[in-house]
Amino acid sequence: MNQLRTTGTVKIVGAGLLGTSIGLALRQAGADVVLADQSKASVALAVDYGAGRAATANDEPALIVVCVPPDQVAEMVERELAASPRAIVTDVASVKGEILESLRAAGVPLQNYVGSHPMAGRERGGAISGRADLFFTMPWVLAIHEGANPAAVAAVEALALDLGATPIRTTPEAHDRAVALVSHVPQLVSSLLAGRLVGAEASDLALAGAGLRDTTRIAASDPKLWLQIFAANSGEVASILKKLSRDLVEAVSALDNLDAPGSLAKLGELMAAGNAGVAAIPGKHGARNASYSQLIVLIDDKPGELARLLTEIGEIGINLEDLKLEHSPGAQIGLVELYVLPKVEVALAEALVARGWRLAG
Amino acid sequence: MNQLRTTGTVKIVGAGLLGTSIGLALRQAGADVVLADQSKASVALAVDYGAGRAATANDEPALIVVCVPPDQVAEMVERELAASPRAIVTDVASVKGEILESLRAAGVPLQNYVGSHPMAGRERGGAISGRADLFFTMPWVLAIHEGANPAAVAAVEALALDLGATPIRTTPEAHDRAVALVSHVPQLVSSLLAGRLVGAEASDLALAGAGLRDTTRIAASDPKLWLQIFAANSGEVASILKKLSRDLVEAVSALDNLDAPGSLAKLGELMAAGNAGVAAIPGKHGARNASYSQLIVLIDDKPGELARLLTEIGEIGINLEDLKLEHSPGAQIGLVELYVLPKVEVALAEALVARGWRLAG
Repeated sequence: MNQLRTTGTVKIVGAGLLGTSIGLALRQAGADVVLADQSKASVALAVDYGAGRAATANDEPALIVVCVPPDQVAEMVERELAASPRAIVTDVASVKGEILESLRAAGVPLQNYVGSHPMAGRERGGAISGRADLFFTMPWVLAIHEGANPAAVAAVEALALDLGATPIRTTPEAHDRAVALVSHVPQLVSSLLAGRLVGAEASDLALAGAGLRDTTRIAASDPKLWLQIFAANSGEVASILKKLSRDLVEAVSALDNLDAPGSLAKLGELMAAGNAGVAAIPGKHGARNASYSQLIVLIDDKPGELARLLTEIGEIGINLEDLKLEHSPGAQIGLVELYVLPKVEVALAEALVARGWRLAG
Repeated sequence: MNQLRTTGTVKIVGAGLLGTSIGLALRQAGADVVLADQSKASVALAVDYGAGRAATANDEPALIVVCVPPDQVAEMVERELAASPRAIVTDVASVKGEILESLRAAGVPLQNYVGSHPMAGRERGGAISGRADLFFTMPWVLAIHEGANPAAVAAVEALALDLGATPIRTTPEAHDRAVALVSHVPQLVSSLLAGRLVGAEASDLALAGAGLRDTTRIAASDPKLWLQIFAANSGEVASILKKLSRDLVEAVSALDNLDAPGSLAKLGELMAAGNAGVAAIPGKHGARNASYSQLIVLIDDKPGELARLLTEIGEIGINLEDLKLEHSPGAQIGLVELYVLPKVEVALAEALVARGWRLAG
């Protein structure tokens, strides 16, 4: 078990998805958690879920985690720092620079504050979507400003570790630049791309494949939340979008003048840069790991077949690293994609075929 | 079993991923298949794989499927129509209008030709990546030109059905317009977005999440193939990109002038259009269907646990519509996302909890 690092009472302000998830995880780990929210119903729900107890005027929190909507964070951090002068205060907003500026402009002493940003979320919000494992293995960014007390940094890092997250130390400026590139720009581009589908013929959209689905999935995100994020990080986002806009104009110009010298070379350059860019993304979270080998098994599409396959893989004694089920409604067979370590791929394939399973390819 | 509709010998010209996959599927269904390729090694490999036998001068194919690279298709179709005047000829290129124009400009009689485009592929190419199930349940577009013989259309549709694909009848023009929107523009936008990552700090990229990965996945595609596709459909692609470019300029202008009246409203409009666009994409292939309910089960990360879960779901008697395994290397637990019809969600949740499984959330 992961021994608790956080000491004292933790107060969570804002019992939405993130606040409730933090409370659930801390309670599971044995911490004392109190919950506050301007909505009494949200607090009651989060308490019912097991995310902590309702905050009272007598609490003396050692750590306060502000989980309110982005445009209310600065004000709430200021209020909590004033109300609990000895407590460490953090927040979980997606953009850090603007909050820090607001606090500084208001003359708030900030040695006990450290902004943070857990890189985790779900498409659905609210206490009801809270999950104790939401932060498990995900990056948790500490955006450390000049003047932050090292003890405050340590307390927030302890919180991240208690939640199973991977703490990453950086500055508010570097954080905002990074998330503009890896999160905010992809969001806006995905939204613009999906927006181009509005008004398209249904028969055209019927040809949509995995490429369109993947590139537009996050376009389903909540505009209200994202407007706050874009507004808070508009400079960094606009700066990258301007470069992207230039690339786009060059691509259009090349397509419009295919016979002109250099047009195809320009398109080729842009495509090759795309290859290089995607290759530069590290790690695995949320993606199939290319370092696993894939086996595809065809199974009858009926209850029990997948269980029978996995039972036999268990008997063979090989651990699956990942698994994906491709199920086509109305079809008689399904495809099961098994991901295993390369060194056991051949052994698993042979054992499955020997047991009568059909492998694709 | 799916009874064979295709009659006579099928000749496949080009033993790459698509040609080999078509051959494998037709052979499995019992058809007579001959393979031709300018590379003898490719033919030999495809023959070894079971995709058919090597073509000879004595073959009298009833159906010829041209699977060569896009820029060689028109010439090959012309050659095959001349060599086998009684055969039906189709091709599988991603853009149809330009091929048709080339053939017409060359004065080739086209009653026995029907262009087609199977909406299927893999990131890897070559005979070695061929799979008999590549087209299973995927759309197979028939791009029917004026003057095509109905018997030719029927023969190509029979081929699609024999491969387990879903035939869709349209015109070359409508096809090219549709794929520009649902395939070519998303590809180029994904490549440009990923291209912006080149030169980024590794510590910035370390914050990448599922959103960046999904939006840039197809940016790993082969530039050589895509340059041919863009070149063949440049008009349709450029036309959509110009609209996207205008949207992008508007977004940048709004970000640069956030305090100006209407700026946030404009960004909100663009985000809302993205919501509407992604909601307009039909069906399921390659995406989680939002019409299923999701249950998340925590399991111990060891061989046999997933099998035990699925065995019990089989005992409960509920059919899974989809399943996703979230496995974190080194972790003691895994998350299994179960997708079921909404009407059985509560029953399954209750039965699993009663059997001692831990549900998340």
